[in-house]
Amino acid sequence: MKLYHSPSSPYVRKVMVLLIETGLDAKVEKVPAPGGVSPVAANAEVQKKNPLAKIPALMTNDGDTLFDSPVICEYIDHLASGKFFPAPGPKRWTALRRQAVGDGILDAALLVRYEATLRPEDKRWSDWDKGQWQKVEASLGDIEREVATFGETFDIGTITLACALGYLDFRFTDRNWRAKAPKTAAWFDKLSERPSLKATKPA
Amino acid sequence: MKLYHSPSSPYVRKVMVLLIETGLDAKVEKVPAPGGVSPVAANAEVQKKNPLAKIPALMTNDGDTLFDSPVICEYIDHLASGKFFPAPGPKRWTALRRQAVGDGILDAALLVRYEATLRPEDKRWSDWDKGQWQKVEASLGDIEREVATFGETFDIGTITLACALGYLDFRFTDRNWRAKAPKTAAWFDKLSERPSLKATKPA
Repeated sequence: MKLYHSPSSPYVRKVMVLLIETGLDAKVEKVPAPGGVSPVAANAEVQKKNPLAKIPALMTNDGDTLFDSPVICEYIDHLASGKFFPAPGPKRWTALRRQAVGDGILDAALLVRYEATLRPEDKRWSDWDKGQWQKVEASLGDIEREVATFGETFDIGTITLACALGYLDFRFTDRNWRAKAPKTAAWFDKLSERPSLKATKPA
Repeated sequence: MKLYHSPSSPYVRKVMVLLIETGLDAKVEKVPAPGGVSPVAANAEVQKKNPLAKIPALMTNDGDTLFDSPVICEYIDHLASGKFFPAPGPKRWTALRRQAVGDGILDAALLVRYEATLRPEDKRWSDWDKGQWQKVEASLGDIEREVATFGETFDIGTITLACALGYLDFRFTDRNWRAKAPKTAAWFDKLSERPSLKATKPA
């Protein structure tokens, strides 16, 4: 298998954590997405496999390409007979909802980042930045209220939340999410000691 | 169960098609999202249930709220012992990949729409519009190459593609996707005769 990869993509990080946790990491060749991926200049090589021109994209041994990260993660978990996607039932719906929160934080944070770094300065719109960041903050508030119930749960839901928080640390240090969600920060710091998270921390 | 709903949301439409197809429609109360949802002015009522302030959001009888549309659709399919999410295996990965293409078309098309209708005119950036629309067109190209293999397949993958194409008809008539993907248009027009799609067509 081959994975279009970038060490700074939080969605790729989800897949990498799954690969390491399931022991499948060595079976997947990492292909650097040449020049990265930009929403205003599609990466032609990636787009041959994923018309949305986004990473991660996983080329399976059957010649198919899978995306986006929830699909790839479920596929890997299935290959490994893993337990990161619980069987249908309350645990699965909770894990998938948490994955949606984590991916939603990332989608909003990425839009904030594109607004601030990609868009020409005179075309930036502060209401857009505020609206997207407000989704991030509301999500952090929900996580902070829920985090005491996480216990030792380590599945696609908590993995995605961890990758989202790691991305906020990586790209939005100045917004200091930790001050607003101290219990979440403590949970995240403990989880970050896992080898799979250490090995994939963006630098 | 209660569903935050808007008749013009293509992601809500996916859920509605599933509800009608599985016979669960009558068991779900539709709650209009008051004032709709805007990425620059979060809907406070929706956000109490979904911190991302997006619809659809499904409040289950257990008191949980599920989102986003892939999670809600899988939950409904499970409740109904449906077959719209195939069991793990090639059919499932194909269906989920197609769902990702359809949702990806919608994500890109929505960003184009926000750029053109929500953002102040002097802050619009044509490269953003072009980059997002190019994802839509590349996806249409992939669908056009694949559509002859769809046959009678009607699962979460083809349902999502249909909702995406319906949204392009609804909001982007002027971009005339049908001219570029005539085989896809023929497939879509035939599928659109199903009662579940007729009943949910945005007006």
